[in-house]
Amino acid sequence: MARFFWILTLIPTLLFAQAEEERIVLVIHGGAGWITPDRYEADEEAALTAVMQAALQAGYAVIEQGGMAEDAVVAAIQVMEEDSNFNAGIGAVFTHEETNDLDASIMRGGDLNAGAVAGVRTIKSPIEGALTVMNESPHVMLSGRGAEAFAEEIGLEMVDPSYFYTKSAFDYLQKVKANEKNGGLLDGTQDHKFGTVGCVALDESGNLAAGTSTGGMTNKRWGRIGDSPIIGAGTYANNATCGVSCTGWGEFFIRNQAAYQLSALMEYAGMSLEDAADKVIQDIDAMEAKGGLIALSSKGECQWSFSTPGMFRAYITESGKMVVKFYTEE
Amino acid sequence: MARFFWILTLIPTLLFAQAEEERIVLVIHGGAGWITPDRYEADEEAALTAVMQAALQAGYAVIEQGGMAEDAVVAAIQVMEEDSNFNAGIGAVFTHEETNDLDASIMRGGDLNAGAVAGVRTIKSPIEGALTVMNESPHVMLSGRGAEAFAEEIGLEMVDPSYFYTKSAFDYLQKVKANEKNGGLLDGTQDHKFGTVGCVALDESGNLAAGTSTGGMTNKRWGRIGDSPIIGAGTYANNATCGVSCTGWGEFFIRNQAAYQLSALMEYAGMSLEDAADKVIQDIDAMEAKGGLIALSSKGECQWSFSTPGMFRAYITESGKMVVKFYTEE
Repeated sequence: MARFFWILTLIPTLLFAQAEEERIVLVIHGGAGWITPDRYEADEEAALTAVMQAALQAGYAVIEQGGMAEDAVVAAIQVMEEDSNFNAGIGAVFTHEETNDLDASIMRGGDLNAGAVAGVRTIKSPIEGALTVMNESPHVMLSGRGAEAFAEEIGLEMVDPSYFYTKSAFDYLQKVKANEKNGGLLDGTQDHKFGTVGCVALDESGNLAAGTSTGGMTNKRWGRIGDSPIIGAGTYANNATCGVSCTGWGEFFIRNQAAYQLSALMEYAGMSLEDAADKVIQDIDAMEAKGGLIALSSKGECQWSFSTPGMFRAYITESGKMVVKFYTEE
Repeated sequence: MARFFWILTLIPTLLFAQAEEERIVLVIHGGAGWITPDRYEADEEAALTAVMQAALQAGYAVIEQGGMAEDAVVAAIQVMEEDSNFNAGIGAVFTHEETNDLDASIMRGGDLNAGAVAGVRTIKSPIEGALTVMNESPHVMLSGRGAEAFAEEIGLEMVDPSYFYTKSAFDYLQKVKANEKNGGLLDGTQDHKFGTVGCVALDESGNLAAGTSTGGMTNKRWGRIGDSPIIGAGTYANNATCGVSCTGWGEFFIRNQAAYQLSALMEYAGMSLEDAADKVIQDIDAMEAKGGLIALSSKGECQWSFSTPGMFRAYITESGKMVVKFYTEE
């Protein structure tokens, strides 16, 4: 009988200890969109899973070695920038003028410092460009050729614009342009995938950082800037609440201040991370725009929310356990 | 004795009725900074007062004729863009490369639509450029040469970049550059005036709109984008709360999401307009950065807050009564 009570006491204690211990330390997304099981073969799923696991592990290695959350964010995002499956770095979508104009931003939750680059074509890693703006300049946001000159001056790796070219992104631009001539939309919103990538990390010092990197919208023109390089819209981090990275129809994420709205709902309305994440996406959905977000609280709780059929998303816990998901959960 | 009571009753009734009736319909600022009585001669004060009154009246005329709040904002700001006393349009500060790179944004409180231009050199009225992005494009933010191509395509008035030149702004750049060579700051933060202009208007339909226009920071480089063209940082409007336009050290207004923070404090924390306006400026002051803001609620209550010795600011009530102020109130 004594043993029975001992077991009854132990089981919840063990479960609770497990729940207590398993903080999530890094969460990533590779974009939201019309990501459904019928669109991917088993080998494609396996390849996408592998690159997302590689991104998680690259960020995790930084945290495990006692590194800073912002460096973990950069390490994880760089894996996705280098992979042509995502709309960031190599594989970025093309503008109307047939260039790859890349945007990225990063924010640190401890001191609310932030950095961003918009419309850059020759910085090999746009997320590293954003980190460098935060750490090495008095500014938050640099754009175009000026941002490139800054990056070169600092000594970042520069590339020829063709470095980011992929045939599939170029072909998709031609399809969208043809569709536009026939009176179609600026971008195909049906059958569409917002392949923006993002990451939120929590380091051993309890500091959060969030980052986002993207090529923006296929066929974008007129130097259009979306939400990804805008602090408060596509990216936000605050140790008092959480870190957030968004993906979706950028104009609506700007108008709704999506990333900072989530933090403000927690800080000022006392809302839970889960409820706040859902409200942000519901508010955007009410404007008939789609997208998703990932969020990680300073307690190591992870939340994602999206209004599309799927979102590439994954997290890793402090013990190194990984979870990768693509589709809507039943 | 009866007459005495009648008077006692009448006075507060009249005062209350006055307070009820006199909604403020338009508020403007011409920048915050080291604006102190010893810096301005009587004729300079008179000239600045006259242009601020002209801006108020230009916006008021739109509202009086039943026009929309966003058109009132544009009309008021255009008066200040055309006046060389302010850092917007003619009289804008110079970049490190000796160009005038202009930023502006506008937001409508009814549907949260917004428009912005960043780093433009040839659009005669940057605030009209922002309005046109909101009304005539699917985008919120356009930048650089692309934004200019869009404006030209739409038919906005274009000018040679020299249109914005003033000797005083050019001379000030040379002074800052010389100071920089001697190890001084990027921009003189002491003895400094942030001459950004802004406006919030409330139209007869009860719709709010807010707008901001600026040349940014003297000696800015690398395509730096400040808070003025960033929705949520320098400009925000929401009929549920208020409209806001900011001026100051832009990087800190971005990091603190100043304009939207004010609205979020009202919407989610139930804070009054006055307390929210003060908290936003206090939070920025706690980071040792200076600036100010104007806000107008959907009830026609006006509030301003600033941490500098002065701010050019003024409002007009629905009956046309104008109040113009420059310095800290005792």
